[in-house]
Amino acid sequence: MALGKDYASQECSVARALEIVGERWTLLVVRDALYGVRRYNDFLVHLGIPRAVLAARLQALTEAGVLEKRRYQESPPRDEYLVTPLGRDLWPVLRALGVWGRSLPGAEPMREFRHAPCGTDLGLTGECTTCGIGSVPLEDVEMLPGAGLDPDPADPVSRVLAQPRRLLQPVVTEPV
Amino acid sequence: MALGKDYASQECSVARALEIVGERWTLLVVRDALYGVRRYNDFLVHLGIPRAVLAARLQALTEAGVLEKRRYQESPPRDEYLVTPLGRDLWPVLRALGVWGRSLPGAEPMREFRHAPCGTDLGLTGECTTCGIGSVPLEDVEMLPGAGLDPDPADPVSRVLAQPRRLLQPVVTEPV
Repeated sequence: MALGKDYASQECSVARALEIVGERWTLLVVRDALYGVRRYNDFLVHLGIPRAVLAARLQALTEAGVLEKRRYQESPPRDEYLVTPLGRDLWPVLRALGVWGRSLPGAEPMREFRHAPCGTDLGLTGECTTCGIGSVPLEDVEMLPGAGLDPDPADPVSRVLAQPRRLLQPVVTEPV
Repeated sequence: MALGKDYASQECSVARALEIVGERWTLLVVRDALYGVRRYNDFLVHLGIPRAVLAARLQALTEAGVLEKRRYQESPPRDEYLVTPLGRDLWPVLRALGVWGRSLPGAEPMREFRHAPCGTDLGLTGECTTCGIGSVPLEDVEMLPGAGLDPDPADPVSRVLAQPRRLLQPVVTEPV
Protein backbone atom coordinates (compact mmCIF):
# COMPACT_ATOMS: atom_id res chain seq x y z
CA MET A 1 0.00 0.00 0.00
CA ALA A 2 2.48 2.59 -1.12
CA LEU A 3 0.94 6.03 -0.91
CA GLY A 4 2.33 9.19 -2.40
CA LYS A 5 3.59 11.89 -0.12
CA ASP A 6 0.99 14.38 -1.18
CA TYR A 7 -2.77 14.31 -1.13
CA ALA A 8 -3.21 15.47 -4.70
CA SER A 9 -6.97 15.19 -4.81
CA GLN A 10 -7.38 16.77 -1.37
CA GLU A 11 -6.97 20.49 -1.71
CA CYS A 12 -8.31 21.44 1.68
CA SER A 13 -6.17 23.18 4.26
CA VAL A 14 -6.13 20.11 6.50
CA ALA A 15 -4.59 18.12 3.66
CA ARG A 16 -2.10 20.91 2.97
CA ALA A 17 -1.06 20.85 6.61
CA LEU A 18 -0.74 17.07 6.59
CA GLU A 19 1.48 17.20 3.52
CA ILE A 20 4.01 18.93 5.75
CA VAL A 21 3.40 17.42 9.17
CA GLY A 22 1.53 14.21 8.34
CA GLU A 23 4.47 11.88 7.93
CA ARG A 24 5.37 9.48 10.67
CA TRP A 25 7.42 11.08 13.49
CA THR A 26 7.20 14.57 12.02
CA LEU A 27 4.90 15.98 14.69
CA LEU A 28 7.00 14.38 17.41
CA VAL A 29 10.06 16.15 16.00
CA VAL A 30 8.10 19.42 16.11
CA ARG A 31 6.95 18.63 19.66
CA ASP A 32 10.56 18.15 20.78
CA ALA A 33 11.60 21.34 19.03
CA LEU A 34 8.88 23.27 20.87
CA TYR A 35 10.11 21.69 24.11
CA GLY A 36 13.50 23.22 23.37
CA VAL A 37 15.40 20.40 21.68
CA ARG A 38 17.68 21.87 19.03
CA ARG A 39 20.44 19.42 18.25
CA TYR A 40 20.49 16.36 16.08
CA ASN A 41 21.89 14.08 18.78
CA ASP A 42 19.33 15.26 21.28
CA PHE A 43 16.44 14.57 18.90
CA LEU A 44 18.03 11.21 18.15
CA VAL A 45 18.37 10.05 21.74
CA HIS A 46 14.98 11.37 22.79
CA LEU A 47 12.97 10.06 19.87
CA GLY A 48 14.86 6.80 19.41
CA ILE A 49 14.30 6.78 15.64
CA PRO A 50 16.65 5.72 12.85
CA ARG A 51 19.19 8.37 11.88
CA ALA A 52 18.04 8.45 8.26
CA VAL A 53 14.44 9.10 9.30
CA LEU A 54 15.43 11.89 11.65
CA ALA A 55 17.67 13.50 9.02
CA ALA A 56 14.87 13.33 6.45
CA ARG A 57 12.34 14.85 8.84
CA LEU A 58 14.65 17.67 9.90
CA GLN A 59 15.43 18.47 6.28
CA ALA A 60 11.77 18.43 5.24
CA LEU A 61 10.75 20.63 8.16
CA THR A 62 13.55 23.05 7.34
CA GLU A 63 12.52 23.19 3.68
CA ALA A 64 8.91 23.79 4.71
CA GLY A 65 9.94 26.69 6.93
CA VAL A 66 8.89 25.04 10.20
CA LEU A 67 12.46 24.80 11.48
CA GLU A 68 15.48 26.95 10.73
CA LYS A 69 18.95 25.47 10.57
CA ARG A 70 21.70 27.49 12.22
CA ARG A 71 25.39 26.72 12.52
CA TYR A 72 26.44 26.96 16.13
CA GLN A 73 29.98 25.59 15.79
CA GLU A 74 32.44 25.79 12.91
CA SER A 75 35.06 23.20 13.74
CA PRO A 76 33.81 20.56 13.47
CA PRO A 77 30.71 22.00 11.78
CA ARG A 78 27.57 21.56 13.85
CA ASP A 79 24.06 22.83 13.20
CA GLU A 80 21.05 23.27 15.38
CA TYR A 81 17.39 23.59 14.50
CA LEU A 82 15.28 26.45 15.77
CA VAL A 83 11.51 26.73 15.60
CA THR A 84 10.34 29.43 13.21
CA PRO A 85 7.15 31.48 13.67
CA LEU A 86 5.42 29.02 11.31
CA GLY A 87 6.60 26.19 13.55
CA ARG A 88 5.38 27.97 16.68
CA ASP A 89 1.96 28.13 15.10
CA LEU A 90 1.83 24.34 15.31
CA TRP A 91 1.61 24.49 19.10
CA PRO A 92 -2.22 24.60 19.10
CA VAL A 93 -2.23 21.47 16.94
CA LEU A 94 0.10 19.63 19.31
CA ARG A 95 -1.78 20.88 22.34
CA ALA A 96 -5.10 19.68 20.89
CA LEU A 97 -3.57 16.31 19.99
CA GLY A 98 -2.11 15.96 23.47
CA VAL A 99 -5.40 16.82 25.15
CA TRP A 100 -7.15 14.26 22.97
CA GLY A 101 -4.46 11.67 23.72
CA ARG A 102 -5.00 12.23 27.43
CA SER A 103 -8.66 11.40 27.02
CA LEU A 104 -7.79 7.90 25.78
CA PRO A 105 -8.33 5.00 28.16
CA GLY A 106 -5.46 4.38 30.55
CA ALA A 107 -3.63 7.62 29.79
CA GLU A 108 -1.86 9.40 32.59
CA PRO A 109 -0.68 12.96 32.13
CA MET A 110 3.03 13.11 31.39
CA ARG A 111 3.26 16.86 31.47
CA GLU A 112 1.19 19.77 32.63
CA PHE A 113 1.22 23.09 30.86
CA ARG A 114 0.50 26.31 32.72
CA HIS A 115 0.40 30.00 32.04
CA ALA A 116 3.51 30.89 34.04
CA PRO A 117 2.51 34.40 35.24
CA CYS A 118 -0.75 33.23 36.84
CA GLY A 119 -0.31 29.45 37.25
CA THR A 120 -3.51 28.54 35.41
CA ASP A 121 -3.57 25.25 33.52
CA LEU A 122 -3.71 25.94 29.80
CA GLY A 123 -6.96 25.33 27.97
CA LEU A 124 -7.57 22.96 25.11
CA THR A 125 -5.31 24.73 22.67
CA GLY A 126 -3.14 26.91 24.79
CA GLU A 127 -5.46 29.64 26.05
CA CYS A 128 -5.48 31.08 29.57
CA THR A 129 -9.02 31.55 30.84
CA THR A 130 -7.85 33.41 33.95
CA CYS A 131 -6.06 36.13 32.00
CA GLY A 132 -8.38 35.98 28.99
CA ILE A 133 -5.49 35.30 26.62
CA GLY A 134 -6.56 33.25 23.63
CA SER A 135 -3.10 32.14 22.74
CA VAL A 136 -0.47 32.29 25.46
CA PRO A 137 3.00 33.18 24.11
CA LEU A 138 5.12 30.05 24.13
CA GLU A 139 7.77 31.66 26.31
CA ASP A 140 5.09 32.09 28.99
CA VAL A 141 4.09 28.43 28.98
CA GLU A 142 5.51 26.46 31.90
CA MET A 143 5.98 22.72 31.41
CA LEU A 144 5.74 20.63 34.57
CA PRO A 145 6.15 16.89 35.04
CA GLY A 146 2.81 15.08 35.32
CA ALA A 147 1.82 12.01 37.32
CA GLY A 148 2.62 9.65 34.46
CA LEU A 149 6.12 10.93 33.73
CA ASP A 150 8.88 8.37 34.10
CA PRO A 151 12.06 9.79 32.59
CA ASP A 152 14.49 7.36 31.01
CA PRO A 153 17.72 7.53 33.01
CA ALA A 154 19.71 6.69 29.87
CA ASP A 155 18.21 9.66 28.01
CA PRO A 156 19.66 13.01 29.08
CA VAL A 157 16.96 14.91 27.18
CA SER A 158 14.16 13.24 29.10
CA ARG A 159 15.96 14.11 32.34
CA VAL A 160 16.15 17.77 31.33
CA LEU A 161 12.49 17.77 30.27
CA ALA A 162 11.45 16.25 33.60
CA GLN A 163 12.34 19.53 35.32
CA PRO A 164 9.91 22.45 35.38
CA ARG A 165 10.81 24.71 32.45
CA ARG A 166 9.41 26.92 29.72
CA LEU A 167 8.50 25.95 26.20
CA LEU A 168 11.32 26.80 23.74
CA GLN A 169 13.84 27.03 26.58
CA PRO A 170 16.90 25.44 24.97
CA VAL A 171 17.64 21.90 26.08
CA VAL A 172 21.28 21.71 27.09
CA THR A 173 22.85 18.29 27.46
CA GLU A 174 26.39 17.09 27.65
CA PRO A 175 27.92 16.28 24.26
CA VAL A 176 27.50 12.62 23.31
CA MET B 1 12.66 2.99 6.40
CA ALA B 2 9.97 0.76 7.78
CA LEU B 3 8.71 2.17 11.04
CA GLY B 4 6.55 0.35 13.53
CA LYS B 5 3.00 1.47 13.98
CA ASP B 6 3.51 2.51 17.56
CA TYR B 7 5.89 4.94 19.17
CA ALA B 8 7.03 2.56 21.90
CA SER B 9 9.59 4.88 23.45
CA GLN B 10 7.28 7.88 23.27
CA GLU B 11 4.79 7.63 26.08
CA CYS B 12 3.45 11.16 25.88
CA SER B 13 -0.14 11.89 25.06
CA VAL B 14 0.76 13.37 21.67
CA ALA B 15 2.36 10.05 20.73
CA ARG B 16 -0.66 8.13 22.06
CA ALA B 17 -2.92 10.26 19.89
CA LEU B 18 -0.70 9.76 16.86
CA GLU B 19 -0.76 6.00 17.32
CA ILE B 20 -4.46 6.24 16.48
CA VAL B 21 -4.67 9.14 14.06
CA GLY B 22 -1.07 9.46 12.83
CA GLU B 23 -1.22 7.10 9.88
CA ARG B 24 -1.50 8.47 6.40
CA TRP B 25 -5.07 9.42 5.40
CA THR B 26 -6.50 8.70 8.83
CA LEU B 27 -7.18 12.32 9.76
CA LEU B 28 -8.72 12.95 6.35
CA VAL B 29 -11.11 10.05 6.96
CA VAL B 30 -12.02 11.61 10.31
CA ARG B 31 -12.42 15.01 8.62
CA ASP B 32 -14.86 13.55 6.11
CA ALA B 33 -16.76 11.76 8.87
CA LEU B 34 -17.13 15.04 10.75
CA TYR B 35 -18.36 16.64 7.53
CA GLY B 36 -21.11 14.03 7.48
CA VAL B 37 -19.71 11.32 5.22
CA ARG B 38 -20.86 7.93 6.50
CA ARG B 39 -20.67 5.40 3.70
CA TYR B 40 -17.76 3.49 2.31
CA ASN B 41 -18.40 4.50 -1.29
CA ASP B 42 -18.70 8.14 -0.34
CA PHE B 43 -15.38 8.09 1.52
CA LEU B 44 -13.88 6.26 -1.44
CA VAL B 45 -14.99 8.71 -4.11
CA HIS B 46 -14.22 11.77 -2.02
CA LEU B 47 -10.79 10.70 -0.78
CA GLY B 48 -9.70 8.91 -3.94
CA ILE B 49 -7.60 6.39 -2.01
CA PRO B 50 -7.12 2.68 -2.63
CA ARG B 51 -9.94 0.51 -1.33
CA ALA B 52 -7.62 -1.52 0.90
CA VAL B 53 -6.28 1.61 2.57
CA LEU B 54 -9.74 2.99 3.21
CA ALA B 55 -10.96 -0.33 4.60
CA ALA B 56 -7.94 -0.55 6.90
CA ARG B 57 -8.42 3.03 8.15
CA LEU B 58 -12.14 2.57 8.78
CA GLN B 59 -11.48 -0.66 10.67
CA ALA B 60 -8.71 0.86 12.78
CA LEU B 61 -10.81 3.92 13.62
CA THR B 62 -13.73 1.68 14.57
CA GLU B 63 -11.52 -0.46 16.80
CA ALA B 64 -10.12 2.67 18.43
CA GLY B 65 -13.62 3.93 19.17
CA VAL B 66 -13.40 7.00 16.94
CA LEU B 67 -16.05 5.67 14.54
CA GLU B 68 -18.94 3.32 15.15
CA LYS B 69 -20.10 0.88 12.49
CA ARG B 70 -23.85 0.55 12.04
CA ARG B 71 -25.77 -1.61 9.62
CA TYR B 72 -28.22 0.46 7.65
CA GLN B 73 -29.38 -2.14 5.16
CA GLU B 74 -29.70 -5.91 5.49
CA SER B 75 -30.02 -7.13 1.93
CA PRO B 76 -27.46 -6.71 0.62
CA PRO B 77 -25.71 -5.92 3.91
CA ARG B 78 -24.41 -2.37 4.05
CA ASP B 79 -22.77 -0.54 6.95
CA GLU B 80 -22.20 3.08 7.68
CA TYR B 81 -19.72 4.76 10.00
CA LEU B 82 -20.81 7.30 12.57
CA VAL B 83 -18.57 9.58 14.58
CA THR B 84 -18.47 8.69 18.28
CA PRO B 85 -18.01 11.22 21.09
CA LEU B 86 -14.29 10.34 21.07
CA GLY B 87 -14.23 11.10 17.34
CA ARG B 88 -16.04 14.40 17.85
CA ASP B 89 -13.30 15.38 20.25
CA LEU B 90 -10.89 15.35 17.30
CA TRP B 91 -12.59 18.40 15.81
CA PRO B 92 -10.28 20.86 17.63
CA VAL B 93 -7.28 18.98 16.22
CA LEU B 94 -8.64 19.18 12.68
CA ARG B 95 -9.65 22.79 13.12
CA ALA B 96 -6.17 23.71 14.37
CA LEU B 97 -4.55 21.80 11.50
CA GLY B 98 -6.82 23.51 9.00
CA VAL B 99 -6.09 26.95 10.40
CA TRP B 100 -2.38 26.22 10.21
CA GLY B 101 -2.73 24.88 6.66
CA ARG B 102 -4.43 28.11 5.66
CA SER B 103 -1.44 30.07 6.87
CA LEU B 104 0.82 28.32 4.37
CA PRO B 105 1.93 30.29 1.30
CA GLY B 106 -0.55 30.22 -1.56
CA ALA B 107 -3.41 28.73 0.44
CA GLU B 108 -6.92 29.90 -0.27
CA PRO B 109 -9.71 29.04 2.14
CA MET B 110 -11.78 26.12 0.91
CA ARG B 111 -14.35 26.31 3.63
CA GLU B 112 -15.44 28.72 6.27
CA PHE B 113 -16.78 27.60 9.62
CA ARG B 114 -19.23 29.70 11.56
CA HIS B 115 -21.22 29.51 14.74
CA ALA B 116 -24.63 29.14 13.11
CA PRO B 117 -26.79 30.95 15.70
CA CYS B 118 -24.72 34.16 15.58
CA GLY B 119 -22.79 33.91 12.30
CA THR B 120 -19.38 34.48 13.89
CA ASP B 121 -16.39 32.83 12.24
CA LEU B 122 -15.06 30.11 14.51
CA GLY B 123 -11.82 30.72 16.35
CA LEU B 124 -8.64 28.76 16.13
CA THR B 125 -10.05 25.55 17.53
CA GLY B 126 -13.76 25.96 17.26
CA GLU B 127 -14.61 28.61 19.84
CA CYS B 128 -17.12 31.43 19.38
CA THR B 129 -15.79 34.69 20.76
CA THR B 130 -19.11 36.48 20.26
CA CYS B 131 -21.07 34.05 22.41
CA GLY B 132 -18.17 33.20 24.69
CA ILE B 133 -18.47 29.48 23.94
CA GLY B 134 -15.13 27.72 24.23
CA SER B 135 -16.17 24.77 22.18
CA VAL B 136 -19.14 25.19 19.87
CA PRO B 137 -21.26 21.99 19.60
CA LEU B 138 -20.58 20.43 16.22
CA GLU B 139 -24.24 20.55 15.24
CA ASP B 140 -24.08 24.34 15.60
CA VAL B 141 -21.13 24.70 13.25
CA GLU B 142 -22.09 25.89 9.78
CA MET B 143 -19.77 24.95 6.91
CA LEU B 144 -19.70 27.36 3.99
CA PRO B 145 -17.79 27.21 0.73
CA GLY B 146 -14.69 29.41 0.74
CA ALA B 147 -13.03 31.35 -2.06
CA GLY B 148 -10.72 28.47 -2.95
CA LEU B 149 -13.37 25.78 -3.23
CA ASP B 150 -13.60 24.12 -6.60
CA PRO B 151 -15.81 21.05 -6.29
CA ASP B 152 -15.04 18.09 -8.53
CA PRO B 153 -18.07 17.61 -10.82
CA ALA B 154 -17.34 13.88 -10.95
CA ASP B 155 -17.47 13.60 -7.16
CA PRO B 156 -21.01 13.75 -5.75
CA VAL B 157 -19.68 14.15 -2.19
CA SER B 158 -17.74 17.28 -3.06
CA ARG B 159 -20.88 18.70 -4.68
CA VAL B 160 -22.87 18.07 -1.50
CA LEU B 161 -20.12 19.57 0.65
CA ALA B 162 -20.02 22.68 -1.54
CA GLN B 163 -23.44 23.68 -0.22
CA PRO B 164 -23.84 25.48 3.12
CA ARG B 165 -24.51 22.83 5.75
CA ARG B 166 -23.82 21.79 9.32
CA LEU B 167 -21.03 19.58 10.58
CA LEU B 168 -22.20 15.97 11.06
CA GLN B 169 -25.21 16.54 8.80
CA PRO B 170 -25.37 13.23 6.91
CA VAL B 171 -24.06 13.37 3.37
CA VAL B 172 -26.67 11.83 1.10
CA THR B 173 -25.62 10.87 -2.41
CA GLU B 174 -27.15 8.67 -5.05
CA PRO B 175 -26.03 5.03 -4.84
CA VAL B 176 -23.04 4.28 -7.07
